[in-house]
Amino acid sequence: MSGVKLIKIKEEILADNRGLADKTRKRLADSGTLMLNLMASPGGGKTSLILQTIARLGDAIRIGVIEADLDSTVDSDKIATVGVPAVQIETGGFCHVDAAMVDRALESLDLERIDLVIVENVGNLVCPAQSDTGAHANVVILSVPEGDDKPLKYPTMFTVAHAVVVNKIDYTEIADFDRAAFRERVAPLNPDAPVFELSCTTGAGVDPWIAWVQGRLHTIGKRA
Amino acid sequence: MSGVKLIKIKEEILADNRGLADKTRKRLADSGTLMLNLMASPGGGKTSLILQTIARLGDAIRIGVIEADLDSTVDSDKIATVGVPAVQIETGGFCHVDAAMVDRALESLDLERIDLVIVENVGNLVCPAQSDTGAHANVVILSVPEGDDKPLKYPTMFTVAHAVVVNKIDYTEIADFDRAAFRERVAPLNPDAPVFELSCTTGAGVDPWIAWVQGRLHTIGKRA
Repeated sequence: MSGVKLIKIKEEILADNRGLADKTRKRLADSGTLMLNLMASPGGGKTSLILQTIARLGDAIRIGVIEADLDSTVDSDKIATVGVPAVQIETGGFCHVDAAMVDRALESLDLERIDLVIVENVGNLVCPAQSDTGAHANVVILSVPEGDDKPLKYPTMFTVAHAVVVNKIDYTEIADFDRAAFRERVAPLNPDAPVFELSCTTGAGVDPWIAWVQGRLHTIGKRA
Repeated sequence: MSGVKLIKIKEEILADNRGLADKTRKRLADSGTLMLNLMASPGGGKTSLILQTIARLGDAIRIGVIEADLDSTVDSDKIATVGVPAVQIETGGFCHVDAAMVDRALESLDLERIDLVIVENVGNLVCPAQSDTGAHANVVILSVPEGDDKPLKYPTMFTVAHAVVVNKIDYTEIADFDRAAFRERVAPLNPDAPVFELSCTTGAGVDPWIAWVQGRLHTIGKRA
């Protein structure tokens, strides 16, 4: 197997994926639906941020969730308990969500009745960064116990993000996490992305995140 | 691009990789060198466990480290400060270490003078589980803040492990982590792997881990 052949195959797959992602993005915008793609390490807080967002915005707008997991329905079961439509993608060991998987999952949601779709990607700080899901914005969540050096080690993830969430700030007492150093490491990779420091457990700092989601909803003509 | 073709390519790559990994494993055993492959999420504690292992065994045996990262030398710099030879693999965005990368990195270590090689895989709880590095044993580290449900969500990683380390047990005060539930979730995936609960920060619980490493060293005729 030559390296050149492998690279060519990868480029073909990525180009196909991008084409489908662009179509999805346009189709959703036309139907007045915003889609966000949440990415994080395992246990970073993707499901918790979705639950916080539903708790704060669920009365004002209609939300749908696409949950991706290798082989379980742990997260979609949690979402279903709060009465929001949740579609499960089981990737069968695959390490990230691509545009085709999202396209198929969207068939199970009534988009005419949904203002915001949140995709919870596979817990992985590497591979999801390389695959366009068709979302209008990418959000990366880093949790405090993971450490402030992660932008140095997983730069692509921080480069493709439209917003950066630092979750579990209630751990800063016990974890050695330098918030200023973290921001300094994100800035050269992504000078435009806002950084939200919050705790999905205590609710501290969640308001500015919600305001950002509301701002993104306005860009496709929605009010929340 | 047909799905069948893609699957065939993946199978060919995995078979090639397994062949090389088997050769590496035999070559290392012949030279009396044990190799361990550490896997974890970003920030799970791979580098910290290596530093603890060096601190406890570094006087008795000769250790070498292979550090893998997408695009930085953050971890190998830390290892170098304790005077242990460290080789950096920069994967260029690739999500895990394969046998070819390890084979090349081993060229930079004087194996006649090394008893134990520790490979720090890319921080990722998905992809590294699918690729044999040539190590004699796989170790998965899960940190308490990630949550006790992770065996349900990342089963392959817990299936391929020869030992499971629960790191950051000093976080159990603040994190909602059920140790018994975690063990119950690991058991059906992997009834044989020992589970070590420890804190690389405080040093609590590290001794049984060290005893396990010593046991593995004995299997290739080394005493530590």
